[in-house]
Amino acid sequence: MNTDWRSHLVTGASTALVLVDIQNSFFHPAGSNYYEAATEIVPNLHRLLRRARASDRLVVHVSEQHRPDVEDFEYAKLPEHCIVGSHDAAFFKGFGPAGNSNEFLIDKRRMSAFFATDLDLLLREKSISRLVIAGVKANVCVRATVQDAFSLGYRCLVPRQAVNSNRPHLADAALEDIDRYMGWAVTLAEAEDALS
Amino acid sequence: MNTDWRSHLVTGASTALVLVDIQNSFFHPAGSNYYEAATEIVPNLHRLLRRARASDRLVVHVSEQHRPDVEDFEYAKLPEHCIVGSHDAAFFKGFGPAGNSNEFLIDKRRMSAFFATDLDLLLREKSISRLVIAGVKANVCVRATVQDAFSLGYRCLVPRQAVNSNRPHLADAALEDIDRYMGWAVTLAEAEDALS
Amino acid sequence: MNTDWRSHLVTGASTALVLVDIQNSFFHPAGSNYYEAATEIVPNLHRLLRRARASDRLVVHVSEQHRPDVEDFEYAKLPEHCIVGSHDAAFFKGFGPAGNSNEFLIDKRRMSAFFATDLDLLLREKSISRLVIAGVKANVCVRATVQDAFSLGYRCLVPRQAVNSNRPHLADAALEDIDRYMGWAVTLAEAEDALS
Amino acid sequence: MNTDWRSHLVTGASTALVLVDIQNSFFHPAGSNYYEAATEIVPNLHRLLRRARASDRLVVHVSEQHRPDVEDFEYAKLPEHCIVGSHDAAFFKGFGPAGNSNEFLIDKRRMSAFFATDLDLLLREKSISRLVIAGVKANVCVRATVQDAFSLGYRCLVPRQAVNSNRPHLADAALEDIDRYMGWAVTLAEAEDALS
Repeated sequence: MNTDWRSHLVTGASTALVLVDIQNSFFHPAGSNYYEAATEIVPNLHRLLRRARASDRLVVHVSEQHRPDVEDFEYAKLPEHCIVGSHDAAFFKGFGPAGNSNEFLIDKRRMSAFFATDLDLLLREKSISRLVIAGVKANVCVRATVQDAFSLGYRCLVPRQAVNSNRPHLADAALEDIDRYMGWAVTLAEAEDALS
Repeated sequence: MNTDWRSHLVTGASTALVLVDIQNSFFHPAGSNYYEAATEIVPNLHRLLRRARASDRLVVHVSEQHRPDVEDFEYAKLPEHCIVGSHDAAFFKGFGPAGNSNEFLIDKRRMSAFFATDLDLLLREKSISRLVIAGVKANVCVRATVQDAFSLGYRCLVPRQAVNSNRPHLADAALEDIDRYMGWAVTLAEAEDALS
Repeated sequence: MNTDWRSHLVTGASTALVLVDIQNSFFHPAGSNYYEAATEIVPNLHRLLRRARASDRLVVHVSEQHRPDVEDFEYAKLPEHCIVGSHDAAFFKGFGPAGNSNEFLIDKRRMSAFFATDLDLLLREKSISRLVIAGVKANVCVRATVQDAFSLGYRCLVPRQAVNSNRPHLADAALEDIDRYMGWAVTLAEAEDALS
Repeated sequence: MNTDWRSHLVTGASTALVLVDIQNSFFHPAGSNYYEAATEIVPNLHRLLRRARASDRLVVHVSEQHRPDVEDFEYAKLPEHCIVGSHDAAFFKGFGPAGNSNEFLIDKRRMSAFFATDLDLLLREKSISRLVIAGVKANVCVRATVQDAFSLGYRCLVPRQAVNSNRPHLADAALEDIDRYMGWAVTLAEAEDALS
């Protein structure tokens, strides 16, 4: 399979790194959705980011940003979270745009980074056809973003060591579904190659 | 939780039944994606359909219908499937619209029934706020449809006995994710009540 | 301006012909929205279609197709029109797909051919970047389609002699707006060149 | 016609004010797209805003905000404009959110305020069904926003004295099209009533 997508994709594919929800809410001990395992992927997320920056790849920093004063439909299932301006909503230390011209912010208030945002428009304008998608949670916002990306025609690589979840069995199932139906679950090294 | 959504939703919620991919491809022994367990939910799907019809509820018959002569982006991961006019693409015997004015077709070519279709528009025009979503596969098209429905603000009830998958562990994970993040995994009786 | 788009666009642009609403409703004397001037562009529409077919260009046949049994939101302003299966909704004689593999149907129920349809998906899958858009009415469905096409990044050529309206001053204003803000109002010959 | 929409809409319609592109670019003498006539509608825009605030109506402040470092598809036709952080992109003096909980920002980079934004989601969450849409230009961003709003099912009122254009004949045509096909061109007093 990997051989397959590589031979198919490596030539001419323009690849971006999409980092999903690397925010205090999940990564900072004081965060509302903090879980200890999240911190385990931080070094790998840094490796991807360094590689993307070294190669001048497009980097999209996606974060959950809910509007204050809105009874968001999501609150039918989830508690209020990541309100604009809160500590939870801020990027975890060491993440967020570096200030160069290849890095962009996408604020979202749904699981998918494509929902009600200009992410697809941005990627089209930048002629991107392949995405490395990493971050948290594998079974929630990462998967939802992969679903939309695949539906729109992007080739999605998800490095197994750069996504996880507070419920490992759900992360495993998400990666199996992604690899079967929507993209390619790859090693960190393969993801780094794709960003080189 | 169930108590909660009931008290919250039962009053005034206008509910539709959305049947996902009840097609030969999955249910007919000659279908390309046939798996034996699929047939186990057929009686329950009929129960939901009978109840919805008895109560004059809106019924949406969703099916996978791929255009011939298109190299569909999905084929990057999946073999060609459910081409318009094929045996695979036809509704499984006993399903499909009955010809009354409350039943509608949605042809889709992505996992989610909302992607590149007029389903959201139709549901808005019919003042629907709650969906009972059933069919196959729990972890693929059912889940993808729930994801979009929830993102758009619909309350989604997924009857556990009226969805499944050829890989039960993936169906279980999907139902757990749905119930945690996107909707309510309910009993068949609860789904029937919601359609009454 | 024309020189400009040519030099900019002619190389490598993959071009499709999009025919908007060439239906009995507008073109047939018994149609509900018939206006005599519509028939004046018929020969030019045929010229475009012949050229596109001769060059194996993608042709998209867009038509208004409203669902029966739906109180369509459009009816807040407009009378019921072009119900699926009606004489009004059928293609005008000589139009509609020829049955070859380059011609596709898009059924719409809004002014824009992109709204709640898979047109954008289809065009992406076919690697189309430029559209020749013709048909009726210049100030309604043609313009609305150009608006969305431009927003999505397509280059839109609208041949002045292959669009019109029952109200010529509104067609003139639409063409001026299109040429200023959204695309290029061109001659028939220029549109034919783009399809060659 | 007005009688008609009133009787139809006044009961139970929840109405928001949508102000389109009241930015330095159009209204400030140093703005890139400044035209003198724009300032003529400023007092009327203030009247609408005062009325909406007095009645605690939702107010949406829409503005053009283009990302730096993106070769925006719009630049195929238009010069670079309203880059985030520029003087052009800032609200014209006296406009923009007042800081209360009923006022929201929508940043857009297409003509329609609905394109690649969360405006539709916000309006749904706030149970809005009717919009008073005012600002500039009548034939460009106002009209495009009305087109999408109508397509999505909102009832759109456009006060003639609170929209205009640097090209009056194009504003007139836009208002005629809006009133015929997409909404209701109303007096300032009627718009104020709808916001009361």
